[in-house]
Amino acid sequence: MKSVIVDHSLAEAGTRRIDWARTNMPIVVGLADEFRQSRPFENLRIGICLHVEAKTGVWIEALVAGGAEVFITGSPGSTQDDTAAALADMDNVHVFARSDETFDDHLLHCEYVLQSSPDLIADNGADLHHLIYSRDSYRHLGEALIGATEETTTGTTRLRESIKCRDFPTLSINDTLTKRIVENRFGVGSSVIDGLMRATNVMLHGKNVVVIGYGYCGAGVAQRLRGMGAHVTVAERDPLTLLEAHLEGFRTSALEECVSAAQIVITVTGYDDILKREHFEMMRTGVIVANAGHFASEIDVPALEDLSVSKREIRDEITEYSLPGERKLFLVSEGNLVNLSAGDGNPIEIMDLGLALQSLSLRYLARDAESLQNGVQPVPRDVERFVAERAVAHWIK
Amino acid sequence: MKSVIVDHSLAEAGTRRIDWARTNMPIVVGLADEFRQSRPFENLRIGICLHVEAKTGVWIEALVAGGAEVFITGSPGSTQDDTAAALADMDNVHVFARSDETFDDHLLHCEYVLQSSPDLIADNGADLHHLIYSRDSYRHLGEALIGATEETTTGTTRLRESIKCRDFPTLSINDTLTKRIVENRFGVGSSVIDGLMRATNVMLHGKNVVVIGYGYCGAGVAQRLRGMGAHVTVAERDPLTLLEAHLEGFRTSALEECVSAAQIVITVTGYDDILKREHFEMMRTGVIVANAGHFASEIDVPALEDLSVSKREIRDEITEYSLPGERKLFLVSEGNLVNLSAGDGNPIEIMDLGLALQSLSLRYLARDAESLQNGVQPVPRDVERFVAERAVAHWIK
Amino acid sequence: MKSVIVDHSLAEAGTRRIDWARTNMPIVVGLADEFRQSRPFENLRIGICLHVEAKTGVWIEALVAGGAEVFITGSPGSTQDDTAAALADMDNVHVFARSDETFDDHLLHCEYVLQSSPDLIADNGADLHHLIYSRDSYRHLGEALIGATEETTTGTTRLRESIKCRDFPTLSINDTLTKRIVENRFGVGSSVIDGLMRATNVMLHGKNVVVIGYGYCGAGVAQRLRGMGAHVTVAERDPLTLLEAHLEGFRTSALEECVSAAQIVITVTGYDDILKREHFEMMRTGVIVANAGHFASEIDVPALEDLSVSKREIRDEITEYSLPGERKLFLVSEGNLVNLSAGDGNPIEIMDLGLALQSLSLRYLARDAESLQNGVQPVPRDVERFVAERAVAHWIK
Amino acid sequence: MKSVIVDHSLAEAGTRRIDWARTNMPIVVGLADEFRQSRPFENLRIGICLHVEAKTGVWIEALVAGGAEVFITGSPGSTQDDTAAALADMDNVHVFARSDETFDDHLLHCEYVLQSSPDLIADNGADLHHLIYSRDSYRHLGEALIGATEETTTGTTRLRESIKCRDFPTLSINDTLTKRIVENRFGVGSSVIDGLMRATNVMLHGKNVVVIGYGYCGAGVAQRLRGMGAHVTVAERDPLTLLEAHLEGFRTSALEECVSAAQIVITVTGYDDILKREHFEMMRTGVIVANAGHFASEIDVPALEDLSVSKREIRDEITEYSLPGERKLFLVSEGNLVNLSAGDGNPIEIMDLGLALQSLSLRYLARDAESLQNGVQPVPRDVERFVAERAVAHWIK
Repeated sequence: MKSVIVDHSLAEAGTRRIDWARTNMPIVVGLADEFRQSRPFENLRIGICLHVEAKTGVWIEALVAGGAEVFITGSPGSTQDDTAAALADMDNVHVFARSDETFDDHLLHCEYVLQSSPDLIADNGADLHHLIYSRDSYRHLGEALIGATEETTTGTTRLRESIKCRDFPTLSINDTLTKRIVENRFGVGSSVIDGLMRATNVMLHGKNVVVIGYGYCGAGVAQRLRGMGAHVTVAERDPLTLLEAHLEGFRTSALEECVSAAQIVITVTGYDDILKREHFEMMRTGVIVANAGHFASEIDVPALEDLSVSKREIRDEITEYSLPGERKLFLVSEGNLVNLSAGDGNPIEIMDLGLALQSLSLRYLARDAESLQNGVQPVPRDVERFVAERAVAHWIK
Repeated sequence: MKSVIVDHSLAEAGTRRIDWARTNMPIVVGLADEFRQSRPFENLRIGICLHVEAKTGVWIEALVAGGAEVFITGSPGSTQDDTAAALADMDNVHVFARSDETFDDHLLHCEYVLQSSPDLIADNGADLHHLIYSRDSYRHLGEALIGATEETTTGTTRLRESIKCRDFPTLSINDTLTKRIVENRFGVGSSVIDGLMRATNVMLHGKNVVVIGYGYCGAGVAQRLRGMGAHVTVAERDPLTLLEAHLEGFRTSALEECVSAAQIVITVTGYDDILKREHFEMMRTGVIVANAGHFASEIDVPALEDLSVSKREIRDEITEYSLPGERKLFLVSEGNLVNLSAGDGNPIEIMDLGLALQSLSLRYLARDAESLQNGVQPVPRDVERFVAERAVAHWIK
Repeated sequence: MKSVIVDHSLAEAGTRRIDWARTNMPIVVGLADEFRQSRPFENLRIGICLHVEAKTGVWIEALVAGGAEVFITGSPGSTQDDTAAALADMDNVHVFARSDETFDDHLLHCEYVLQSSPDLIADNGADLHHLIYSRDSYRHLGEALIGATEETTTGTTRLRESIKCRDFPTLSINDTLTKRIVENRFGVGSSVIDGLMRATNVMLHGKNVVVIGYGYCGAGVAQRLRGMGAHVTVAERDPLTLLEAHLEGFRTSALEECVSAAQIVITVTGYDDILKREHFEMMRTGVIVANAGHFASEIDVPALEDLSVSKREIRDEITEYSLPGERKLFLVSEGNLVNLSAGDGNPIEIMDLGLALQSLSLRYLARDAESLQNGVQPVPRDVERFVAERAVAHWIK
Repeated sequence: MKSVIVDHSLAEAGTRRIDWARTNMPIVVGLADEFRQSRPFENLRIGICLHVEAKTGVWIEALVAGGAEVFITGSPGSTQDDTAAALADMDNVHVFARSDETFDDHLLHCEYVLQSSPDLIADNGADLHHLIYSRDSYRHLGEALIGATEETTTGTTRLRESIKCRDFPTLSINDTLTKRIVENRFGVGSSVIDGLMRATNVMLHGKNVVVIGYGYCGAGVAQRLRGMGAHVTVAERDPLTLLEAHLEGFRTSALEECVSAAQIVITVTGYDDILKREHFEMMRTGVIVANAGHFASEIDVPALEDLSVSKREIRDEITEYSLPGERKLFLVSEGNLVNLSAGDGNPIEIMDLGLALQSLSLRYLARDAESLQNGVQPVPRDVERFVAERAVAHWIK
């Protein structure tokens, strides 16, 4: 099947992007070298729904090196057209992704992937799984599939709770300790600093920053902010977690008490509407508000809009809200994830580790799927340990 | 029953010790105030085997305030005679503990405790449990007891594996996340610095220190050493834990590769014979070696003795071993826990939290033992959460 | 005189930029409020050569609030046309600056500034001073001028060594301890992190980073890198400074010994050709090389070009050099200052402090120039202390 | 002349002490090796007034190795009788020091030193200089002496302001940048942690600690406390220094505002009566107060005594003051330097560096005194640089 992309002439720019990513993805590159010998995906078709961007490109190379024929669609909004063009030029790769696609286009592209009759699926947000279980025309794939992976926590929840996937094993990539520690504590910790500095150009040294939530992500964010000289106060509901933050040397406080003195407020909780009208009313003028949690909904933006006298874009990625009492509040990236929207997302190496987990999970399925039960489940511990060992081998020198 | 102690005239000195401890134990003091009102131990006898030292004294006060009559023996080697004298002067407290007691004396003192027909037991290393299950004369206590607590991991293991305690519920204090995080990461982290500085008077700034093991304790030790300006290298076998240390900013290395350049080596692994002859042979002259793990056996001292040409005490808590090739190795506290032997052990506040867990576990048993099954089990989550909330209330101001 | 700018219709975008800067420049804004009352520049013309960008705009507002008529030209290459348009719309402000100007245009614009017969001059790189002392037509200004300021170290050196400015006092802004500590240690420290993350999207956690130079800037860079989880090695020639880095907890090493293991190398020395052919030959493949020192010349780029087999732009701000032996070296921003070229330069607050020094130096000249001798000299200590007090008042809350 | 010491039989214990010190004093040991060859003190008598303790012993060995005959007295209160006995056993060493000596004994011992007709003097607090300039019988020594060193800042001040020493050059050891950075920032920083933990056994993690003064010593103390997990607030009067603390990530505050919330307060200012009655009145119950500044007078202890209802020793090195309103205040070491009184003073390596400065200053005098003017002056820069280079050579491995 022919690729569906914006412009084939962008391939060279895409190749350069992929080259830069490859330079910093030693784990997946190392796996590609092994796959080239062992050919774990010989004669297998892999259907993929994942962001069509440079790091994904390096991973596709590894799958193809392992003998796979790959059919990939992207995730709405994240497609890099040059990367898509570069991928479309590769042998055994079929790309259905355009940066300008509508949601209907996206569904159509997902169907193209499924029409390839894949043996393995790598899904993102359970979009492919959903089609299989909701459209009669793809229902037969459930039986035919060797297995699948799911990249996101959202997708895993959807598979468990609504789709109730049951005909083949699906390995949940995000449920690994490796990913939680490495990606959440270290990846998110540093990419939030990147996004925040880029969006604002303000100094972090000496700033009163309130970090709401001290889970893996929140702890990482708090530690990096401290590493940049900020004065961090942690707001957290769980008493033991709060104690941990306190003993780690962070000021801690109930949100209601610290939010009025904050110069920067960052939500990292995983819950909705953590910052509400009552908080906006307390904040001092000039405060910068950003979200680094799972969803855009941690900040109640509608309530903020409602409270505001007026708003305007004062700088790329920064909306100025004029509040009653001559106060200004600056919202970063409209409440979307500050590290993704205002920065480049997690560092390349973090994606290297995540895509290595993907690679080895797919290999595990290709080799040993019959040893697994059907339905959603964690990545086998052996796979996780193997990836950690690879990261050790490549990162520690 | 009359107390068995060294010298009643030491009571005043003991009272001062207890006063200092009390000053820094707000959680247990707060519980004592509540117990004085609610009297959870009214008409109950509590038999205790625990270190007879000042912090224990503050805890005893809380139990007595709650209506208990207390019978306590110590742990061989840790009894403070002045604290014992101060406790013996209190109403409703019976003490059987001497700093000069032999192991046979210790067993006899444990029997005195059991002869009081306790309703509740707070045990340390399972010594009281052992007597109940090994001596016919105390066997009847198993049925009579409301329940018990066990302070140590060693004791919990013994109860599970050899004693197979089964007639009443025993709550395992050390199995709580609260204790693991607070005591291991923060308590041990700081007390090791204390012990090391006290034993050696050497500068930590700029020193090459190898920390072996990066569990809760090891991570705490590594972080505090870094906080004191040391150049820390972590040696750790588990790849994911190693990765965590690496990303936290620590150099990491296989033990064999880093031990020869170390100026200080600290074991914190929980395993035996981590430092062996082969390592001693590689170490450079002047190296300081200490253990902060669970047991004195992490360093293979017999192998060191065997390898040495001669040894001498060169400073309190430091043995100088002369090794072949004109090299000197300095062992701290004969390989015993450096924070306990060369320092004062964990900070008072850490014990406050641990003894608050004891207090509330005993109260839980007194009130709700029938809701528990028999045998060893974790402290109920409610108790743990309650203690964390108390620590939050008292520590965070 | 009419302004010379690119496009008046850009004023609105420029106003937004200035608004964002103003939000984060409380010191200069506070001074503007005072100047509005005290009118220190009543009836004075101030001729300025400085980057025509948003932060400068906020400063111009303060001068005008103080009664000044301002004539400003930019520095070649840094003019923001929208900011220029916004400034040109203000009363009492005359702007001669275009982003597309040649060096000859720049000189002409400097002449326009001098043709306004300024009473005070704020210079950058001594361009205005140079014209006064080299062109007969402006020579009379030397006598007429009350005094001047010079923003840069380069300009100060030029004034001292070649121009030998002598007819009026010139205050050297960059020679203050306040600026050295605040701008160099903290400003540069954090903006280098910003530039590096933005240019590369690589992870700093666990990376082997060599920082060459441990002066105010280098120490700041090293500390922030450590704060981001990097493994920093410092290379420094002065033994006492080296000792300081070592005791601060940084690995230190001779450049020749550490450069071959580095994953990232950053020069921050103030000297030329610190990284030379011999170093490029030792570096491992994949190394990222950047400069954060005073001049682009710290890295010997011609030698690198000479050594390379080929080169290409692999990503914005990153040049890939293919070296003999299949090695790749990645140079950031062609060796220009990584914080300025790949990032937004120092945080806004840092510029606030620097422009407050400018404002108060000009006020000092307007009020008390007769108390000063002629020629280049430090900013009076009272001015410096006053600025520090203002920073304390605005930053510490 | 025969030594005057307490007990010659203590020599073996003293030898062990010196052995431990020597192990950690590579710089002075290295100089001893060189002196053994070059014999810079051949036929010279060196009169010394300095603490007679183990580290001084190692230094004496170096002087004797260089050919000197040494006559040493101690400083009242700091003499280790076992070290004195070990030194008295050495060839060419004469010791006049007893731990039980009165101030009159001390003066007599100083006279014994002068009666040896020394060629060089190493003084402490200017006691030897004072005798030379105040007693006619020693006045002739002024002419005969080649030169002298003075260890302390107090002594240097006394020499400059009251004694007005003028007949020979005296090098002021404490006036070096090396000593200021290494000893004050790093030495004092870590020894204060040692003293504080030892005196109190309290947890530093999460504690509200107010550090008063942010000079070299104060900054060191604040950084180490943070490294141990404390929540540090800095109180400092100079605005630029305050700004530095703020940007370094420390909370800062006026003393009056932060002292009431403090759990621990440490003075490190160099000024008298920093903590006064008004502060004691504000402090919360349980507060621990310590001094790490130059003199015992930073805390106004008489005012504290005056305010108190009663006091008692509650623990070694801790006095409990009962204040009005049922409040308790705990003063460490009666307001004396917490690192010296409650701990072992600065780490051995710090003394190694200081005594290396002494050794090389004396060698400089022996070789090049004629190149120096008479009177108090800084250590020559060459000497300082040489010591820094030695520290680099021995410490950085």
